[in-house]
Amino acid sequence: MSHLQALNTYFAEHREQHLNELNEFLRIPSISSLSEHKEDMQVAANWLAEALKKLNIENVTVDQTAGHPVVYGDWLHAEGKPTVLFYGHYDVQPVDPLELWDSEPFAPEIRDNKLYARGSSDDKGQVFMHLKTIEALFATEGTLPVNVKFIIEGEEEIGSPNLPAYVEENKEKLAADLILISDTGLYAPGKPAVCYGLRGLTGVQIDVRGAKGDLHSGLYGGGVQNAIHALADILASFRDEHGTIQVEGFYDKVLPLSEEEREAYRALNFDEEALKEEVGVKELFGEAGYSYLEQTWARPTLEINGVFGGFSGEGIKTVLPAEAGAKITCRLVPNQDPEEIISLLRAHIEKHKPQGVEIKISEFDKGAPFITPFDHPVIQAAGRSYERVYEVPTAYTRGGGSIPIVAAFDEILGLPVVLMGFGLSSENFHAPNEHFHLENFDKGLRVLGDYLHEVAGLKL
Amino acid sequence: MSHLQALNTYFAEHREQHLNELNEFLRIPSISSLSEHKEDMQVAANWLAEALKKLNIENVTVDQTAGHPVVYGDWLHAEGKPTVLFYGHYDVQPVDPLELWDSEPFAPEIRDNKLYARGSSDDKGQVFMHLKTIEALFATEGTLPVNVKFIIEGEEEIGSPNLPAYVEENKEKLAADLILISDTGLYAPGKPAVCYGLRGLTGVQIDVRGAKGDLHSGLYGGGVQNAIHALADILASFRDEHGTIQVEGFYDKVLPLSEEEREAYRALNFDEEALKEEVGVKELFGEAGYSYLEQTWARPTLEINGVFGGFSGEGIKTVLPAEAGAKITCRLVPNQDPEEIISLLRAHIEKHKPQGVEIKISEFDKGAPFITPFDHPVIQAAGRSYERVYEVPTAYTRGGGSIPIVAAFDEILGLPVVLMGFGLSSENFHAPNEHFHLENFDKGLRVLGDYLHEVAGLKL
Repeated sequence: MSHLQALNTYFAEHREQHLNELNEFLRIPSISSLSEHKEDMQVAANWLAEALKKLNIENVTVDQTAGHPVVYGDWLHAEGKPTVLFYGHYDVQPVDPLELWDSEPFAPEIRDNKLYARGSSDDKGQVFMHLKTIEALFATEGTLPVNVKFIIEGEEEIGSPNLPAYVEENKEKLAADLILISDTGLYAPGKPAVCYGLRGLTGVQIDVRGAKGDLHSGLYGGGVQNAIHALADILASFRDEHGTIQVEGFYDKVLPLSEEEREAYRALNFDEEALKEEVGVKELFGEAGYSYLEQTWARPTLEINGVFGGFSGEGIKTVLPAEAGAKITCRLVPNQDPEEIISLLRAHIEKHKPQGVEIKISEFDKGAPFITPFDHPVIQAAGRSYERVYEVPTAYTRGGGSIPIVAAFDEILGLPVVLMGFGLSSENFHAPNEHFHLENFDKGLRVLGDYLHEVAGLKL
Repeated sequence: MSHLQALNTYFAEHREQHLNELNEFLRIPSISSLSEHKEDMQVAANWLAEALKKLNIENVTVDQTAGHPVVYGDWLHAEGKPTVLFYGHYDVQPVDPLELWDSEPFAPEIRDNKLYARGSSDDKGQVFMHLKTIEALFATEGTLPVNVKFIIEGEEEIGSPNLPAYVEENKEKLAADLILISDTGLYAPGKPAVCYGLRGLTGVQIDVRGAKGDLHSGLYGGGVQNAIHALADILASFRDEHGTIQVEGFYDKVLPLSEEEREAYRALNFDEEALKEEVGVKELFGEAGYSYLEQTWARPTLEINGVFGGFSGEGIKTVLPAEAGAKITCRLVPNQDPEEIISLLRAHIEKHKPQGVEIKISEFDKGAPFITPFDHPVIQAAGRSYERVYEVPTAYTRGGGSIPIVAAFDEILGLPVVLMGFGLSSENFHAPNEHFHLENFDKGLRVLGDYLHEVAGLKL
C-alpha cells in the first residue's frame, strides 16, 4: 500500500473524530482585534499547544509577545532530511453583522458538506489540517518523512504587529528548508493552485497647496494656480494612455516573466468575459503587452486610491481651491524595492511639480514583494502532490495582493515559501457565513501528507 | 457758478438732512433671503416709492412679482436728450453672526466719517445717492439735463430670480440709452473706477464610472481602469503647463484686448507683490503673454472647483475606485457664448475619454459675459466725471466675477451698461460691520450730478 493509500484510509476512518476536534477549536472565539477576547486568544493558543503535544511534537511552547501568544513546536528526528516550517494563525476576524449569519459563528454546523463557522477556512481549519497530517503520518508510518517546526500566531488578522520581531529573535530556532502556509485558496472549485509569488505594497499621500485659503474664482481665477489643476497634472503624469507607468526607473528592477510562467498562465484559459461581467465594465484596461493575469500577478501598479479638494457638495461653488490631495499606492513585484520606489516617486513628483504650488509627500507603510521561483523544486513538488489527489493539472499562480508576513519570513529567514491553500474565494472569509468545503478538507489532508514525502525526496 | 459748484454747495448744505433720510432707509431690515422679513421688503419698496414721488419722479409704481416688489418711476421731460435708466437694489444680506457687529446692523451709526449699517454700501447707500442726485439737480437747476427712469429691485442678494422676466415684460417701458448702476467699488481709496466689463460663467460636472463598485487594488489592480486615473487624465488635458486652455475652439470668439485697454491696465501699476502676499503664494500663475489684470479681467478661465473619488480618510485604503467626479467652471469673456462653450467642453471630454470608463456630464447654470466697449462715449464720459471730482486719473476696469443681472439687462434691453460704484472692497458688504466711507458718498453725489450733464452732451 502506498503512503497515499494508507493516508486515505486513515483519514476516512477518523473523519468524524477529526471534525469533532476541529469544532472544539472553532468554538473558541479567538477574535484578535477585540480586547474582550484577549482571554480567548490564550485559550486557543493553549488548545493548539495541547494538540501539538498529543502528536508527539516536542519543545511545545506558548510564547508571550507584546500582543497575543505565538505557539511553537518541533520534531527533528528525520536525520538528513529537509525541515518544513509550518506557519498558520489561530486568530479570526470579527463576526459583525451577526444577524446576517444563518448559524452562530462559533457554533460550527455542517450543511451540504460545508462546515460553517468563523475561522473554518481562514485559517483554523487549514492549521488543523497541518496537525492532522502529522497525526496521520505518525499513525500510518510510525515516523515523519521530514523534520517539522510549527509557528502559529494569533495576530494575522490585525497585521501581525509582533511576529517579525519574534521571528527575528528566534531566527536560529526557526531555521528550516521551506515554509509551508495554507492560508490561500484553490484557483477554482476542483482546480488546485500553488501560489509562488505575491505583490508588495508602498505608497504616498500627495498634498498640494496653492494660496493660503480658497479664493473667489471670479476675482482671482486665471491669475493664481489652482491646487486641483496642479494635482491633476501630477496624477496624469504617472501613466500614459495605455496604462504604462511613466515614473523613471519604475520598471528597472522588475523580474521579467519567464516563458514557462507565461505558458502556465495561458494554460489557465482565464475567462475575461466573466471578469468583465463580475466587475461591471465593458472593457478591461491594463499595461499593453500583458494578459490580465500577467497584469495583476506579475506587473507592478500605480493606483490612485483617493482624491480630494475643493467643493464636492451638490451644485456649484465657484471656488479656486487652495488645497488638494491624493493617495497613491503601488503594488510591487519582485525584485522592486519599496524604499527605492518611494524615492523614484518623489523624484517624479518633484520633476512634474507645476508652478505656483507647494507639495508635501507623506509615506505609507511598505511591504516587499515575494517570490519563490516558479521552477524551484519545492514549488514544482507541491504541484505534483496536488495533481496526485485532485487529478487535474495544478494552477501555478501569483497573488495580486500582499501578505505582509510572507515577505517578512522571506526577508528574515531567507527561505522559499510555499503557499498551498485549500480555501475557495466564495467561502466568505472576513464576512458572515464563513464556511469551508469539506471536500477540500478531505483532499487537502492527503495532499499535505503526500507533499511531505515529496519534500523528503528533494535535495534542498 | 458752474453746475458742479452749485451741486457742491447744495450737497454741503443738505448733508445732515440727507444722512438722516438715508438712516431712515437703512433702518428697514430688508433681508430678501429670510421669509420673516417679507413685510419689511414691502416697507422698503414703499419708502423708495414715496421718496421718488417727492423728487417729482412720475409714474411711480411698486410692482409685485412672484417674489419681492420692483419699484419703478420716470421723468421724461428733457426733450431730445438721452434717457438714463438707474438700476439698484433695496434688499440686503443677512446679518449673522450678530455678535461680531460693533453696532446694531439696522441702527446706523457714524464713526470716523464712516456710516455703519447693513446696506450702507451694498446697495441702499448708493441707490439713495441716485435719488439725491436728482433732488439736487432739480433744486439747483429747476430741471434735469436728461430723461431718467428708475428700476430698483428687492432680490439682488438672492440672484434676481424674478427680474429678467420683469424686464422682458416691461421692455418698452424700460427703453433707454444707457443703464447706470452704482453697486461696484472704487479701484482703491481715492482712485475711482469705471467698470466696463464682467466675465460670464458656465460649467459642468464630470462623473466618471469604471467598475460597478470599488475593487481590491491587489486583486484587480493593473487590469481594470481606475476612475480617478481616468478623471485625472481628462482634467490634465484641459490646460497646458503654462495655463493655456487646450479645449479646441475655446478662445475662438474671445474679443482681443485693444492696445488702449492694455495701456489703461498698465497705467494702474498693479502691485503683484502685494497680491502674492495677500493670497499667500510664492509665484503667480496664469496664461502666458498676459498680465495678472488681463488674465483675471479679460481672459477666460477653466477652473476645477472640486474633485472627489475613492478614499479620503486618514491613512491608507488600497481601493481601486469605481467612481470619481469633478466640478468645472469657466469664467467667460466677451464674446464667448456659454452654450457654445459647453458644447466645446463636451466634445473635448469625449475626445479625451480614457478607455474602460463611462462618463456623465451635467451642466450648471450659465451667465453671459458683458462688455460696454472701452471707447464707448458713456464709458469715457463717466471717467471724465470721476476725474473732475476725485482729481486723479480714473481707472478703467473690468470685473473678473459675474453680476448676472447686468448680462440680463445687456441681453434683453441691448443697452450700454455703466458701472459707476462708490464702495470700497474693505467695506464688509456681506459681512459684519458693513460700512460706507462718507467721503465717497459726498464725492459720488457730485460725480453722478456731473455725469448726467456729461450724458446730456452725448449723441447716443
